[in-house]
Amino acid sequence: MTDYFKARINLEPSEVPKEWINIVPDLPTPMTPLVNPMDGKPAPPEMAFAIFPKECVLQEVSQERTIPIPNELREIYAKSYRPTPLHRALRLERELGTEGDDIKIFYKNESTSPTGSHKPNTAIAQAYYAKKDGLEELVTETGAGQWGSGLAYGCNLFDIKCTVYMVRASFTQKPGRKILMRCYNAEVHASPSRFTESGKLFLEKDPDHPGSLGIAISEAIEHSMSSDKIRYSLGSVVNFVLLHQTVIGQEAKIQLNKAGIKDPDIVIGCMGGGSNFAGLMIPFARDKLTGANSEIEIIGVEPRACPSVCKGQYRWDFGDTAMKGPIAKMHTLGHTFIPSPIHAGGLRYHGMAPIVSILNNNKVISATMHHQTEVIKAGIQFAKTEGILPAPETAHAIKEVIDQAIKAKENNEKKVILFNFSGHGYFDLLAYKEYMTGALEDYELPTESIKKALESEEMPKIDESQF
Amino acid sequence: MTDYFKARINLEPSEVPKEWINIVPDLPTPMTPLVNPMDGKPAPPEMAFAIFPKECVLQEVSQERTIPIPNELREIYAKSYRPTPLHRALRLERELGTEGDDIKIFYKNESTSPTGSHKPNTAIAQAYYAKKDGLEELVTETGAGQWGSGLAYGCNLFDIKCTVYMVRASFTQKPGRKILMRCYNAEVHASPSRFTESGKLFLEKDPDHPGSLGIAISEAIEHSMSSDKIRYSLGSVVNFVLLHQTVIGQEAKIQLNKAGIKDPDIVIGCMGGGSNFAGLMIPFARDKLTGANSEIEIIGVEPRACPSVCKGQYRWDFGDTAMKGPIAKMHTLGHTFIPSPIHAGGLRYHGMAPIVSILNNNKVISATMHHQTEVIKAGIQFAKTEGILPAPETAHAIKEVIDQAIKAKENNEKKVILFNFSGHGYFDLLAYKEYMTGALEDYELPTESIKKALESEEMPKIDESQF
Repeated sequence: MTDYFKARINLEPSEVPKEWINIVPDLPTPMTPLVNPMDGKPAPPEMAFAIFPKECVLQEVSQERTIPIPNELREIYAKSYRPTPLHRALRLERELGTEGDDIKIFYKNESTSPTGSHKPNTAIAQAYYAKKDGLEELVTETGAGQWGSGLAYGCNLFDIKCTVYMVRASFTQKPGRKILMRCYNAEVHASPSRFTESGKLFLEKDPDHPGSLGIAISEAIEHSMSSDKIRYSLGSVVNFVLLHQTVIGQEAKIQLNKAGIKDPDIVIGCMGGGSNFAGLMIPFARDKLTGANSEIEIIGVEPRACPSVCKGQYRWDFGDTAMKGPIAKMHTLGHTFIPSPIHAGGLRYHGMAPIVSILNNNKVISATMHHQTEVIKAGIQFAKTEGILPAPETAHAIKEVIDQAIKAKENNEKKVILFNFSGHGYFDLLAYKEYMTGALEDYELPTESIKKALESEEMPKIDESQF
Repeated sequence: MTDYFKARINLEPSEVPKEWINIVPDLPTPMTPLVNPMDGKPAPPEMAFAIFPKECVLQEVSQERTIPIPNELREIYAKSYRPTPLHRALRLERELGTEGDDIKIFYKNESTSPTGSHKPNTAIAQAYYAKKDGLEELVTETGAGQWGSGLAYGCNLFDIKCTVYMVRASFTQKPGRKILMRCYNAEVHASPSRFTESGKLFLEKDPDHPGSLGIAISEAIEHSMSSDKIRYSLGSVVNFVLLHQTVIGQEAKIQLNKAGIKDPDIVIGCMGGGSNFAGLMIPFARDKLTGANSEIEIIGVEPRACPSVCKGQYRWDFGDTAMKGPIAKMHTLGHTFIPSPIHAGGLRYHGMAPIVSILNNNKVISATMHHQTEVIKAGIQFAKTEGILPAPETAHAIKEVIDQAIKAKENNEKKVILFNFSGHGYFDLLAYKEYMTGALEDYELPTESIKKALESEEMPKIDESQF
């Protein structure tokens, strides 16, 4: 007998976590540094301070296992939307035909933030530290706009200017998030733009240039260099962003305990740059590394159209196409890789967070991948059973959850599955329309051609022995 | 010193109210019945049973002061999204310059439902009763789609078919909610359609007919008559819909008490058909009527483009343009009134709930109105301070809240203001874009021309002495 009253587990606003979990000191192999593209050496702090807010740089290289969340910041989380609810997917379980309590599916609902995803978790923190540093502006790039709207929201809370370079193709085709960013006072430019030298170069070649994330990053970095009151802001990949997201997993642990569950058996999230996945799984990955619970299976889900971990190489690579930003050691498809136009814009990044890459190399986590048609189908199944329409990114995690639940059922296993419902899909309805009208396409590059492309690409020359 | 940790007041899922509040027996003047358009006499139960689920009809005419909410239904509310949070608008207060705790603004956040508004409160209840009656389908009309997506969600929860006739102009221009409804398994037709006789008539005249709510209602009613396994579903106006919404005000009362506040001084909601406003205010209106607290000021906010209470007449009128549905005694602008194309589609109804009309006649509540430009401006001010972008409908309430707070501040009064945040605006971003680009227009009909139009219109012939 299921009890629907216990299917949604809330925490009080005062239960917002008091610290972030930094997994770097517990990693089984040493953390790799961000490298200066100018000289191939680890970026010195003074260089990083010129790019990011100071406290974020200190967090990036911190060896402390936990980092306190300032109380002022906890208050803002609490006032706005945290802790987020944990739901048991009772109706999805029933639909999958899992009997009784053998298979339990839980999801952490990050879609309840004002911009509808986990992105404000780090956006608010970065804006807070920027304000403390006396900065006047944060600048970033965005594809479909999930991150851009998160940062616009965060900056507005602290009265800091926010400038967003938005890939022109999305700027034109997906006006929703652009309007939302402007409601939060952000300045949004179609990229390539006339506001930067690099933007102008691309526009000279083609006045209707559709843009790319790589170009938008170049413009944002150039813009941030124009004044010492401006810094660049990142929404994923780097350590401090993953750190800020660990509120997700910490809350989920407490909520599972409230539901009478000590630990999940399987933890699942979708991976683009890696931040929502890491935010949920880092507390559990640390338990695996410290031996507190070595049995937890942790799975990151990629699109088959952009499988950085599943099919890429682990190596030093540029974070951006224009080779202007920091170099990181990570799983990558190559910085010139242009992913197919799948709807999960947040998963169309050529690389992967170094922390996630190291955890994968050490088999603390594993990676899998799915096609967007089966993913969107799973998203609709979720909407029909649990009521909330997932973002196409989130639907990748859901597809894997359904597969794992069915496998466990077939094997007569008992499993508790936890996944991150990273965002809702109300700005991504076109993906669902295309699925329902049969217009959705799948994309997959042959492994051989990925390998060839990687080999033909200019690689950064890094001599680790010189570090 | 404000405490952000106390700015969001949650209730446990088990605290979903156990009963609805029926204000009909407490009304200062007798409730007026729904009247059969065929003979001008109160619609007999057997006629109503052919239109609505049986239990809804019994609730419509009930004289009980409270009606129990079935536990199964409470479970569904709890599993899905209820109780919704109550927020204190600390950042909006600060922006308005209200010092200390003299002016407190609270909002009940109904945007946290899966479809983003209060509509599922009644949709789930109606679908539940339809299932109990052994029905196979509910059919309704929708304008912009807030109600249609709510009903699609509710029906899907109980495996009942849902058919929605959506005004063609919205069907074409606002595809978002149409896709969402289809994700919930609903059948959505552009109205006028070829599926009904009345639809065909309009299409013969004009194959590109843009449609209207009146035509869509006619089609939905005709469709519902085609089988005894199908019923018609309404999203506002009638008593049982207002009844279902009273969970909002009951929860808000408990949450205010938790915040140390016995009663608000002012209660505000926007009014289209009246259901979200009534849902919040009915528990407080009953307190006024029973003398438990006669001081509470209750204000309904209308658009200046469609001011049924502020500028209409209180009289018998048809609920729909085609004069097929029940006749009600209410404030109305006339059933042939076509409101200007304001963005707040949910407030573009010519009439007003009879319960709200009676409360207005007896000065238990009052009504006011605002222009859409000032309303959307208030909506942006809310997004910038509180983080959530309101639906254009909800922004009407916010404009009034801001005005009341400023007035109280100027008069050095202490006020607790409570309003219903009935829905978010993520499907209505065009309104905000038009505001920011200066393209938003205001509409207001001169009082004289409203009066003339009402006088020239065919009125139902009702002899109340015959009831």
